[in-house]
Amino acid sequence: MTGYGIFSTPGTAPRTGVQVNGQILDLAAATGDPVHATGSLNAFLAQGPAGWAALRERIAHLDGPMISPAEVTMHLPAEIADYVDFYSSRHHAENIGRIFRPGSPPLTPNWTHLPIGYHGRAGTVRVSGTPVVRPKGQRKPPEAAPTFGPSLRLDIEAEVGFVVGVPSALGESVPVSAFAEHVFGVCLINDWSARDLQAWEYVPLGPFLGKSFLTSMSPWIVPLADLEAARVRPPARDEPLLPYLDDADHPWGLDLAMEVRLNGELISTPPFAGMYWSAAQQLAHLTVNGAALRTGDLFASGTVSGPERDQRGSLIELSWNGADPLKLADGSTRTFLEDGDVVTISATAPGAGGTRISFGEVTGRIEPAT
Amino acid sequence: MTGYGIFSTPGTAPRTGVQVNGQILDLAAATGDPVHATGSLNAFLAQGPAGWAALRERIAHLDGPMISPAEVTMHLPAEIADYVDFYSSRHHAENIGRIFRPGSPPLTPNWTHLPIGYHGRAGTVRVSGTPVVRPKGQRKPPEAAPTFGPSLRLDIEAEVGFVVGVPSALGESVPVSAFAEHVFGVCLINDWSARDLQAWEYVPLGPFLGKSFLTSMSPWIVPLADLEAARVRPPARDEPLLPYLDDADHPWGLDLAMEVRLNGELISTPPFAGMYWSAAQQLAHLTVNGAALRTGDLFASGTVSGPERDQRGSLIELSWNGADPLKLADGSTRTFLEDGDVVTISATAPGAGGTRISFGEVTGRIEPAT
Repeated sequence: MTGYGIFSTPGTAPRTGVQVNGQILDLAAATGDPVHATGSLNAFLAQGPAGWAALRERIAHLDGPMISPAEVTMHLPAEIADYVDFYSSRHHAENIGRIFRPGSPPLTPNWTHLPIGYHGRAGTVRVSGTPVVRPKGQRKPPEAAPTFGPSLRLDIEAEVGFVVGVPSALGESVPVSAFAEHVFGVCLINDWSARDLQAWEYVPLGPFLGKSFLTSMSPWIVPLADLEAARVRPPARDEPLLPYLDDADHPWGLDLAMEVRLNGELISTPPFAGMYWSAAQQLAHLTVNGAALRTGDLFASGTVSGPERDQRGSLIELSWNGADPLKLADGSTRTFLEDGDVVTISATAPGAGGTRISFGEVTGRIEPAT
Repeated sequence: MTGYGIFSTPGTAPRTGVQVNGQILDLAAATGDPVHATGSLNAFLAQGPAGWAALRERIAHLDGPMISPAEVTMHLPAEIADYVDFYSSRHHAENIGRIFRPGSPPLTPNWTHLPIGYHGRAGTVRVSGTPVVRPKGQRKPPEAAPTFGPSLRLDIEAEVGFVVGVPSALGESVPVSAFAEHVFGVCLINDWSARDLQAWEYVPLGPFLGKSFLTSMSPWIVPLADLEAARVRPPARDEPLLPYLDDADHPWGLDLAMEVRLNGELISTPPFAGMYWSAAQQLAHLTVNGAALRTGDLFASGTVSGPERDQRGSLIELSWNGADPLKLADGSTRTFLEDGDVVTISATAPGAGGTRISFGEVTGRIEPAT
């Protein structure tokens, strides 16, 4: 038993399913509970840890319709409330710093003190498989006026997402210790990025159109409750942590092995275990000012990159901003994405008893600009 | 007839009302239409211009319960989908540039080419009157490590908000000419800002916790259809506009006269007519990359500041970042907000036949940090 998602078969309405032994158990039919017939996980997510645990216990004894994954269409698993994207891989942040600010320290001074993040566009978070229409916008050539047209530097960001079930009140802060009381589970995210649009727009208020055209989400959400064997201690931190970020007693590093494929070819294996800031710290930071959580809030890790070249989670890093193109098996090279390219991100993690849990995949095909 | 909002009286459920001659017409009771009994404007907003016009026509002939504003509680008028905040007052952007980057050009190079914006937190947009609990977070003293505690530089941002009714599809761009086919109406926004949190966190990905603790929204949304007499041509632009931002044939400047009061004392009168980028240009920019709109999307102008000192829409400008405190009528001074302070933003605009339309107000009282 691993992920929960929303599926349909031809002629039937989207409903909740859970993965059991490679098949999909139809929870709407098996339980008769209308909470699983809404076409979204939100009502179930809002039940909180007691409800999540009760269903988990019950599933082992349910005798319901099992459906082959080949027969289903998967839908966006949750109605996304707010979407926040963090920037918590040190290797990624250093690579970006070296590319854009050569000669300066690769990390901004705040980076080791807080998990930097920003709000993205919740309304354009879509399920895996949604076509990636190349976005248009302003691009600024050096020493010339900006021009308008399709992005010429379309990129991926291989990320891990966390889905909030239990809301918090305005003014309330969620401590690191309460992470699993609010967050239901984990998914994969591709935060598609138009680097040329982003480079021109993002000073001083951050990324906007360079990101907001599409964020793809894997259809299955793996419960935190299934990930106990994957928990690891995050790497040592450079700076003493302020108390609200101290996670010594609540380490929420997760040993996900990620794989990024371009047109089927493995181009990167980002190691999630090395992330500097954990999701529990991200949630504590997100709410420390009193910002409320809602059921369906999604927050993502930021691009996951490891120390090695073949562990980088974006093309801007893999091709060093185009200066060192990625060599593909067919002899061609790639700097940024071309129309027709298909990018697929997948991941596995240690499960109970030496098994491995699959997170499935998040995939998308680049379509030409309209 | 002006604004639409959601109201309740003691013991009754929130429902839609419209302002008629200083009273509130109960649209749920007067029309019997369940769309007005949902406790949110969203279903009505989604009807689009034909539905909006039909109701407007009908209201003149409706004979329903009229309720005194003194008897009602107002609620958040719409479920906010995505919230975007722009930065479209040239005077504001120049003031901020002069304060934070002395010796450099006050505007970043992109400012005159595109309406800079970013996504805010939709889940913490609340109705006027919601207490403003002083947020906590990291503050970085010069030459010292960051500390944690209540914001010491809590500020306002006097803004105008635009509420989307009609969605757009992923991949679709909404041209300047289609502004009124998607946007229903206009409200007032106070985008509360913790300047010390913001200053430490915002490089390189923009504002996050410095803004996400609360954004206050006025309870009444004035339809664009009532604002024809308020339309003005925006100021001349410095740079030629890319075609998708060309608004020569669709000027959507709006001559709102705003007033900002601190504890009842008028401290600023920001003129909205002088905004460099119009809401129609903001919407065209927001969607030019194919980002979809949803019913309930809210986008705000950014702080409205005029050229004069007493036309600045934030305390960081009014007190020049604390260097030149604001002198109040009681002899006291103010740099940033103190606990107990009440800030109220109101506005009026020219209406049909020489009348003036009121936008009501957005207000909030600062409560101590918890």
